[in-house]
Amino acid sequence: MPPETDHSQPVTIACIQFEPKIGEVDANLDAIEIRVRQARANGAQLIVLPELADSGYVFDSAEELAQLAQPIPDGQSAQRLIALATELEVYIVSGLAEVAGATFYNSAMLCGPEGYIGTYRKMHLWYRENLFFEKGDLGLPVFATPLGKIGIAICYDGWFPETFRQLAMKGAEVICVPTNWVPMPDQDPQAEVMSNILHKAAAHSNGLFIACADRVGTERGQPFIGQSLIIDATGWPLAGPASREDDDILYATITPADVSTKRHLNEFNDILGDRRSDVYG
Amino acid sequence: MPPETDHSQPVTIACIQFEPKIGEVDANLDAIEIRVRQARANGAQLIVLPELADSGYVFDSAEELAQLAQPIPDGQSAQRLIALATELEVYIVSGLAEVAGATFYNSAMLCGPEGYIGTYRKMHLWYRENLFFEKGDLGLPVFATPLGKIGIAICYDGWFPETFRQLAMKGAEVICVPTNWVPMPDQDPQAEVMSNILHKAAAHSNGLFIACADRVGTERGQPFIGQSLIIDATGWPLAGPASREDDDILYATITPADVSTKRHLNEFNDILGDRRSDVYG
Repeated sequence: MPPETDHSQPVTIACIQFEPKIGEVDANLDAIEIRVRQARANGAQLIVLPELADSGYVFDSAEELAQLAQPIPDGQSAQRLIALATELEVYIVSGLAEVAGATFYNSAMLCGPEGYIGTYRKMHLWYRENLFFEKGDLGLPVFATPLGKIGIAICYDGWFPETFRQLAMKGAEVICVPTNWVPMPDQDPQAEVMSNILHKAAAHSNGLFIACADRVGTERGQPFIGQSLIIDATGWPLAGPASREDDDILYATITPADVSTKRHLNEFNDILGDRRSDVYG
Repeated sequence: MPPETDHSQPVTIACIQFEPKIGEVDANLDAIEIRVRQARANGAQLIVLPELADSGYVFDSAEELAQLAQPIPDGQSAQRLIALATELEVYIVSGLAEVAGATFYNSAMLCGPEGYIGTYRKMHLWYRENLFFEKGDLGLPVFATPLGKIGIAICYDGWFPETFRQLAMKGAEVICVPTNWVPMPDQDPQAEVMSNILHKAAAHSNGLFIACADRVGTERGQPFIGQSLIIDATGWPLAGPASREDDDILYATITPADVSTKRHLNEFNDILGDRRSDVYG
């Protein structure tokens, strides 16, 4: 067990940006292990990996997904991450392709020194994900850990302001975002990417720390945009954006309990307390 | 009456950025009239003015506000704007200090060629506004006009993602934002201001056109930040940001009905239809 901590203690977060290869689960887990060990050696206590980090993203068929997806926490991918987390005494959030019975989910698992902690299943499915996965049926859980209260959102979930609002209202302090961001229409190549804009706005509007770990590379013709980002609860970047094309590990040290002071904007305003629940629930 | 139009027709919006002077209602209305005539001459069909454009913002006392605030639509400020709108055959949204009985609201009025259309009262009050105004009690109305369906939000309302989400779900196509943005803590002077980030995210997440008219200048020690902005329903700027310090008029031509195509991201995704109302209402 790690030394006991609490959410008023600083936490060093790492976001690992890399290129999973479609179908190469063993090689992807090897790539993850190398980077998790490196991030831990550099002081990370909470490590975020991309969406579908074990399987890759662009499935040709449901049959292909079925060969790659595994149960959580009993499958090979989850077990290997749990073994790493317990050995290294570190918390890990990773996107994984999950099978549960005959149903497939685009999921993320949280594990730590104490082993398996919990799973989030992506609620908002993007584009052809709808052909392969079911929409998440676990709501938006918040996991109380010794580091702080952790929520998870995956990629297109971040297009829905309700995701972050619900997590904030349920007490989350840090949102881990495993993602596979793709280019958005009409993006000016010189401008900040919309995915970063959305998450900065979400962090600022909710007083949440947000750690986004994206992938890079082009898979079966689908490009991904990198630019992983760790955002302060004020909405300003703490680390990143990472590069558009290369492997990277971002680091930032935060204090989860700071969300309460950052949400208290002045003697009159508190950004959750000022909600007009009488009007919009 | 203007020639009949419908919301599939292009609409030219103007956002007027200027410096209202605290307490000088007549001079402020003169300044507004000059700029409204100019914007109309340049083709504007919908003109947005800043928050509290008739009164100024930093009140010393409730007594001072009581001397400045007027009923809507029967007071001098509203009547002068209505006369302008009918004469020029143009739609105008302006922030106004409103008194209703013994109650004060930080309001915005919409008027057009047909006269008075409606009022919105700011729902989320910022800082010392809480000393002078009551929170808005009219919800988030959407006004059906010949130009399109118009919603209104004022300044700090934009910090609440629910504002734009509710307006989008109620059918709004164009959100007019009279505002008096102030500097936010920890703003990097080289970075895009958070107010612009928030409204770009809101436009993108909801498929809404958003037209923000800010003020400039420093009033009784309170600086304002300008940088008015007109945003496409994709989230990308159509005009602006305007300067941080100077008068300006931004123009952009939009087609309100385009929101439905812009919300339909691909054959699987519609950004309002993809909401998980089963989870978050």
